[in-house]
Amino acid sequence: MADQLDETRMRAAVEAAYRGPRGANPLVGAVLVAADGTVLAVGHHRGAGNLHAEREALTRIARTSPGMDLSDATLYCSLEPCRHHGRQPPCTEAILSAGVGRVLYGADDPTPDASGGATVLRAEGVDVVAGVLAEECRRINQRWARAQREGRPFVTVHLAQSLDGRIAAADGTSQWITSAASREHTHRIRRRIDAILVGSNTAAVDDPRLTARLPDGTLSEHQPLRCVMGRRPLSEDARLRRGRPEGEGWVQLRTHDPLEALQRLGEIQHEGHPVRHVLIEGGSRVLAAYFAQDLVDEIFAYQAPLILGAGPSSVGDIGVTTLSAARRYAQDPAEGGAVRILDDDVCVHLQPAEDAHVPDSSDAPADQAGAPADRSS
Amino acid sequence: MADQLDETRMRAAVEAAYRGPRGANPLVGAVLVAADGTVLAVGHHRGAGNLHAEREALTRIARTSPGMDLSDATLYCSLEPCRHHGRQPPCTEAILSAGVGRVLYGADDPTPDASGGATVLRAEGVDVVAGVLAEECRRINQRWARAQREGRPFVTVHLAQSLDGRIAAADGTSQWITSAASREHTHRIRRRIDAILVGSNTAAVDDPRLTARLPDGTLSEHQPLRCVMGRRPLSEDARLRRGRPEGEGWVQLRTHDPLEALQRLGEIQHEGHPVRHVLIEGGSRVLAAYFAQDLVDEIFAYQAPLILGAGPSSVGDIGVTTLSAARRYAQDPAEGGAVRILDDDVCVHLQPAEDAHVPDSSDAPADQAGAPADRSS
Repeated sequence: MADQLDETRMRAAVEAAYRGPRGANPLVGAVLVAADGTVLAVGHHRGAGNLHAEREALTRIARTSPGMDLSDATLYCSLEPCRHHGRQPPCTEAILSAGVGRVLYGADDPTPDASGGATVLRAEGVDVVAGVLAEECRRINQRWARAQREGRPFVTVHLAQSLDGRIAAADGTSQWITSAASREHTHRIRRRIDAILVGSNTAAVDDPRLTARLPDGTLSEHQPLRCVMGRRPLSEDARLRRGRPEGEGWVQLRTHDPLEALQRLGEIQHEGHPVRHVLIEGGSRVLAAYFAQDLVDEIFAYQAPLILGAGPSSVGDIGVTTLSAARRYAQDPAEGGAVRILDDDVCVHLQPAEDAHVPDSSDAPADQAGAPADRSS
Repeated sequence: MADQLDETRMRAAVEAAYRGPRGANPLVGAVLVAADGTVLAVGHHRGAGNLHAEREALTRIARTSPGMDLSDATLYCSLEPCRHHGRQPPCTEAILSAGVGRVLYGADDPTPDASGGATVLRAEGVDVVAGVLAEECRRINQRWARAQREGRPFVTVHLAQSLDGRIAAADGTSQWITSAASREHTHRIRRRIDAILVGSNTAAVDDPRLTARLPDGTLSEHQPLRCVMGRRPLSEDARLRRGRPEGEGWVQLRTHDPLEALQRLGEIQHEGHPVRHVLIEGGSRVLAAYFAQDLVDEIFAYQAPLILGAGPSSVGDIGVTTLSAARRYAQDPAEGGAVRILDDDVCVHLQPAEDAHVPDSSDAPADQAGAPADRSS
């Protein structure tokens, strides 16, 4: 059984989980606590290819206190420990070989491959309690779980715009609306995603390279699969292909249906792994297609402090004609908080606000911007 | 003469200055230091109608240590102490009656009425040094000084927009794009400005009240002059006039020239004072006119986390067709920092970036968003 103290410790695991980046894998936090209440180690998952949270915590304690008896210790995990071999070995193995006596976890693993860890641990005599702060733990990875259910990669959107929401001036110039620090941040994201996607029109007009670079300007070892979505043909000498045939580092998804594009992407192997995380960088019509179908799981919106007054808006028509139908998002606390100052730019990190308050007509007095700040009406 | 220690203390005065709000009056900070280096008091100006920074610092020390001998003390002021009777008595009087022996100040007062304080103090035997950290001190109020030179009120702009830069949905609904906390913040600004201005089209379509309210929804004692700019007639029963004749709390400026509108506003008395600070709330055409002529001194940009995909952009055509000609701003450290989180919204506080880096063509490799983050090129 879990008591209030257990919930407090699980809350620390939830906080640890939110330190990680969103993407192919769920956010997970783990806190290892001794019988006397001492916190022995904290771990969180740092994204695909890195240690899982449980293993990170157990590795830490093994390093600082080798051979410590953990049979009286409790491991708090925001998500059910996995039992499958993915890019990392199963957490159940790590827990069993460390000899942890008790495991409390929050949310059940929603994936068929990874779930069942609790059963494995119980069969080996570990005391397992499920569902501690279950709702809070489930909410951490709500959209990730949905992407899993829909059999598609996790979708991150990049908006790089002026203060008045434009992605280029009237003559098409857009280099650079955002600051050097914003572009550096974008490359940090490019370095960890599996695929990067732009519309075929953007590919033709802007001729981007879509590479992931290091701060010194050199190419990073990992390069995302470069994807063009839409039917406009890509020229032979486009920078993102450089004469290479389709399939060699780039693909074209000849569809205007975003879910179809994502599902096809999910079937592609790139650098030895399936595509499970895609970054969409534009243009406004492609972004609109993803927003319209509520397929955007995460947004990084870079706002540069300049006014253009003309030029394309960052997001095109999504079929919304009235305010109550707007697509709503909420600040995302993951990965160090929702707001970043990047030189002169401000970058806001957002996630879908599944339960966001949508004002009804009784909220709307006739004063455009003069109503009292009354949250109850 | 001023030495390095004096500059360190002046820097504290500069920091204090930035705590205040921009508007009708310059930002000013003052630090009173005893002969042994003890900081006796710090003051800053909190906006029109409040004590000046020097008087605030001197009032503090008089309260905590009444009768203290200040003949060996030094007062560091970011701006030359004023010698005129405005809404506050002259700072020179406060300094003389407190018996402060030495005054160091940064920037000369650029206004004919208030300047000359140094001369007054010297004539009374005070040791006065001018120009300490002069450039830093001058920069604090660069735009305020320019508004003074142009004989017009200080202009604050309010942008309240969706993530994609829109101020209304396609059907015109706009209540509420921003959060309750953002609207509350707007009312804090409305409570301290002299006048509030919207376009005649916005006045007709949105029928705003343009009142300043307290957090409980009641009207604040001070109400800004409500101004409509443009030629579209205002209906008798428009909320911002409620049947009252022009001049009774509202005016219409029948011009499309923003500088002319401002200069006329500056000649109007409201609640016993001339209009010296105006807040412009929209719509996009009126805002564009002020941005186009570089008459925007301060911006509060409220960005709500929702996507509309259609509807008017926050700022209309300003005659800029290419990125290098964009109007550039920079984060404003005044009044507690440039970025505020207001419920789900992010509010960015900006000032014109008079010396902002404008990228030239050598900055622009062909990769839309893939160039290295190289600040030197």
